[in-house]
Amino acid sequence: MPRRIVIIGAHAAGLDAASAARKTDRTAEITLITEEKHAGYSRCGLPFVIGGQIPSFNDLIVFPQSYYQMMKLTLKTETKVTKIDTGKKAVETVDKTGKTEEIPYDSLIIATGASAFTPPIKGREKQGILPLRTLEDGEKIDQAIKNGAKTAVVMGAGLIGLETAVALQERGLQVTVVEMLPQVLPAMLDADMAKIVQEMLQQKGINILVGKAVEEFLGTEKVTGIVAGGEQINADLFISAFGVRANTQLAVDAGIALGETRTIKTNARMETNIKDVYAVGDCAESTHIVTQKPTVQQLGTVAVRQGKVAGINAAGGYALFTGVLGSAVTQLYDTQVGVTGLTEAAAQRARIETVTGTITSKTKAHYYPGAKPIKVKLVVEKELQRIIGAQIMGGEEVTQRINAVSFAIQKQMTIRELAKADTAYAPPLCETWEPIVLAAEMALMKLR
Amino acid sequence: MPRRIVIIGAHAAGLDAASAARKTDRTAEITLITEEKHAGYSRCGLPFVIGGQIPSFNDLIVFPQSYYQMMKLTLKTETKVTKIDTGKKAVETVDKTGKTEEIPYDSLIIATGASAFTPPIKGREKQGILPLRTLEDGEKIDQAIKNGAKTAVVMGAGLIGLETAVALQERGLQVTVVEMLPQVLPAMLDADMAKIVQEMLQQKGINILVGKAVEEFLGTEKVTGIVAGGEQINADLFISAFGVRANTQLAVDAGIALGETRTIKTNARMETNIKDVYAVGDCAESTHIVTQKPTVQQLGTVAVRQGKVAGINAAGGYALFTGVLGSAVTQLYDTQVGVTGLTEAAAQRARIETVTGTITSKTKAHYYPGAKPIKVKLVVEKELQRIIGAQIMGGEEVTQRINAVSFAIQKQMTIRELAKADTAYAPPLCETWEPIVLAAEMALMKLR
Repeated sequence: MPRRIVIIGAHAAGLDAASAARKTDRTAEITLITEEKHAGYSRCGLPFVIGGQIPSFNDLIVFPQSYYQMMKLTLKTETKVTKIDTGKKAVETVDKTGKTEEIPYDSLIIATGASAFTPPIKGREKQGILPLRTLEDGEKIDQAIKNGAKTAVVMGAGLIGLETAVALQERGLQVTVVEMLPQVLPAMLDADMAKIVQEMLQQKGINILVGKAVEEFLGTEKVTGIVAGGEQINADLFISAFGVRANTQLAVDAGIALGETRTIKTNARMETNIKDVYAVGDCAESTHIVTQKPTVQQLGTVAVRQGKVAGINAAGGYALFTGVLGSAVTQLYDTQVGVTGLTEAAAQRARIETVTGTITSKTKAHYYPGAKPIKVKLVVEKELQRIIGAQIMGGEEVTQRINAVSFAIQKQMTIRELAKADTAYAPPLCETWEPIVLAAEMALMKLR
Repeated sequence: MPRRIVIIGAHAAGLDAASAARKTDRTAEITLITEEKHAGYSRCGLPFVIGGQIPSFNDLIVFPQSYYQMMKLTLKTETKVTKIDTGKKAVETVDKTGKTEEIPYDSLIIATGASAFTPPIKGREKQGILPLRTLEDGEKIDQAIKNGAKTAVVMGAGLIGLETAVALQERGLQVTVVEMLPQVLPAMLDADMAKIVQEMLQQKGINILVGKAVEEFLGTEKVTGIVAGGEQINADLFISAFGVRANTQLAVDAGIALGETRTIKTNARMETNIKDVYAVGDCAESTHIVTQKPTVQQLGTVAVRQGKVAGINAAGGYALFTGVLGSAVTQLYDTQVGVTGLTEAAAQRARIETVTGTITSKTKAHYYPGAKPIKVKLVVEKELQRIIGAQIMGGEEVTQRINAVSFAIQKQMTIRELAKADTAYAPPLCETWEPIVLAAEMALMKLR
């Protein structure tokens, strides 16, 4: 009898799990179940459809119908899993017509993801508070712009908040971003780096209020304004970018344990505490490569990597997930911003003593026309002098610099080794002394 | 009495040595001696002035006159060192007026570089065979174009040869490249990757003849044509890009030992066999990080890193040079080409058994407009499964991918670790699965 693999969720984590399972076991029956109408699209692309860079929301559908056929995957959309029965090894579902079904499994992969979250603020039951999590969310925002929205308030200055703010401003709206914490991108950048991003966004015309919590939603049935830091701000469009919460209720109800991050606890094979049940993606916990502590990084790259590991294991193979560094990057107008490992602030919270090295340089030889600025901040653990984090921003070539430092962190490179590193150079492509290496030299000077 | 440091050569290696020496010893007397009229310019920028991307040759002068004053460096241009007397610890010089001088040293740094080389081909004494090594060489080529040259033959398809060929074609010349070996960029790329570069150049209209040695220079006093592979090719302009030879005669005459690469043998402090005499840059040998064998990589990045180490040591400090990987990159039209570590062919010559992993992907999410192609080839040592080399080409973001793999090689990352690596992603900046990671996966499949 073929192995039955059931996957709850059909985006990055779920689909990479399904693909890996299929490659591991050619005969398994693999079923993907999602509540959404569309499966296998890129959430990360949503702001760029709104901004107009990507022509259509349908372009984001990474896995077309033919993929499921080719890979022999059964996809059930608009179908809700109502219960996981780990004793019976089955899930109970209900589809949009109300039809219920019990689907047995040999291996179960929970990839239920996370949902946009609006804190318990007075008036949050009012209509018109739009998140940007699903394709339908994106279509609603797009429709509101087409219907004539001229002003917007984006609540939250994380990655999604800022990417959406930029997209709205590119569509001609007057945009205000409200952030409770005293800086933009608080999970990604230290205050010194965040300040530069904030100033850049302000210069582009986005109004940014940091250190101001949203206190109330105003309006009768529909929201027409907010109160933040005592100030009233009216707008046509209200984007909820406060953050996301892992969808764990189904797992909790089934007796599957959560970890200290309140997401599903997993081991290196992405197994939960229940035999033959795996968890991956935004709902799953993993280990931070630097701190070796539980962490949850709700990133597409983590989702696909975890999905692959769980898929192999669920199909009878053997694979380990070696942890996360939280490498992430974004593009805001012409500025690329990236991070890997710990920020200075995160290191402090983890009680790691650090020194930092920061440098501003150019992306090409300074005499080569078109050179763009680039700024590198390295975070170094003080005693063993290992690199544990980097924040980089610039006009180009940020992503792969983040990857380069990520590799260095993963291989426990010391700041002395980095200051000696062999790098590539050509006048149209970089400076003779690579900015990462110069930043290492700056950190070293503080350690001498 | 202040320490007297004499540096022969005043480009990348010499000037970085001088800067590092000054930072190490505030009171030393530091003298730089160069035969050239201009010191401290970027040779790597020369093709891009000819191509028109950089407005003027003077833009390439990285170290202005004010730098020597600020750093208290004595610079002697158009001055030739005729002898190194290691017994007396002095160098003998003659300037352009014929005036001789004996300059004593406590530490001597030899940064005599390398010179363009034309093999002993029949007729090479004829006029009009132009190398592209010095600023004056660049000016001569530029003048020849301004004087109406319409056709050019570039002899040699290494980095300088191809960059110059592209530059000449961009200036409107009909260009033929002749290469003795059966592929372009033979020191940099494997044949499979080189073929793609060759086809791209041919599509741009450059005529490329590989596997054809230049057999004769034709013409009376001035060269008007060559014979290569039995075929006669006439042209208005002849560029000698056969390669360079290290300038070691001065050192050899002084009893300074050469290594097996026929360049000056050095240890990790960049010391030669003679006490207080250092050698750096294109004339100096160093150790390859992968093979741990002597090697010479005539690259600007190596020159500045070696210069810095020698400068610190020569001034009484302590610094080590940890070896080279030969990381290099270039831009030919819109294609960036990079390498680090060993090619498959170089590994074979070093008797290292390898497997490779090659992948073609995109530089942005495939649904994001403007995504450019990128191709990654990884070279992996078979038994320990460590990465030992990479060749990457693509429309953007090649340089820092080379650096990322360079860091991985330097930290002895295995291909399994790379296939698990944490990388950054955003739709406008890269694919979810980083191409380097996918190439690692391809190599792993061959190892299973």
